[in-house]
Amino acid sequence: MAHIDLGVDEQENPGITGPMRFRPETAKPLNELAEVLLRGPHPLTPGERELIAAYVSGLNECAFCCASHSAFAAAQLDTGMTLVDQVRADLDSAPVSPKLRALLRIAGAVQETGRKVTSELVAAAREEGATDLEIHDTVLIAAAFCMYNRYVDGLGTLAPKGREGYEASARRIVEFGYLSVH
Amino acid sequence: MAHIDLGVDEQENPGITGPMRFRPETAKPLNELAEVLLRGPHPLTPGERELIAAYVSGLNECAFCCASHSAFAAAQLDTGMTLVDQVRADLDSAPVSPKLRALLRIAGAVQETGRKVTSELVAAAREEGATDLEIHDTVLIAAAFCMYNRYVDGLGTLAPKGREGYEASARRIVEFGYLSVH
Repeated sequence: MAHIDLGVDEQENPGITGPMRFRPETAKPLNELAEVLLRGPHPLTPGERELIAAYVSGLNECAFCCASHSAFAAAQLDTGMTLVDQVRADLDSAPVSPKLRALLRIAGAVQETGRKVTSELVAAAREEGATDLEIHDTVLIAAAFCMYNRYVDGLGTLAPKGREGYEASARRIVEFGYLSVH
Repeated sequence: MAHIDLGVDEQENPGITGPMRFRPETAKPLNELAEVLLRGPHPLTPGERELIAAYVSGLNECAFCCASHSAFAAAQLDTGMTLVDQVRADLDSAPVSPKLRALLRIAGAVQETGRKVTSELVAAAREEGATDLEIHDTVLIAAAFCMYNRYVDGLGTLAPKGREGYEASARRIVEFGYLSVH
């Protein structure tokens, strides 16, 4: 049970959806940020950006966000959940492009602290073709999931077992986006 | 110098202001979130909420955000910067209300990881009169500053020395709010 009375059935409103119903004033900018970062026009595909979100959520051990964004990534990557699992298990050997691997390394540094992002990590991403926009958004996606993860776990919300619920959410996010979450 | 070309004079656009000019699409929800959380209608005063932001930014060792939100808190608390410094130096002995101290303890737990927020910490805040809304917003303010701090430091932005620039920003934020930042 969540730490506060969210005023909803937690089974039907697991994870971040309960707090978002409890406080729609903050849900609005939180969903707008996710929509711009993960689904707005971008050189990185939505699947690649969701992969960054899933990777950071896994490092933060946030069960709800990790399962959600892994499902959202898998639904939008040709390689599906296999690649998500490979990246989360061992980034160095996972079959992603050199650019995406370098960006994921930056995201992993941000998850610890912003001060872990070194000039060397940024230069390595740039050498693989990453642009300033891609580096900026990788930093902000990783930083944003350090927020979403703490929000979800800091309120002690429910993280359902099994993949079915997350796959249903993935279908809704892929079709309607984050602005449909309220 | 920042890790990417922000397209601005960094001396005139230090900290988060450079990345916000670089990417106005994400600046919009980031500022809207800060406005609702730190200045919207609320049982906690803006000064108390800025104090939570300053406290978390200090724990994250984010020089720009800590100096900024310490100045914003000081400008809106009767006790000024003295109280901010006391809270940051030793929360247990700082002369804040028992409720605010209990909420700051929750914020400190969130800074580490959401999973550190225990039922005991929440019950202690509730015993001092904290409402569900105050507990919710404390968790989200702390989580949000784990994002803002990583965003600012992950891009290697400039944190000016001295308090003058931060005090000038405080006057602008107190008068015009976060939606004036762009």
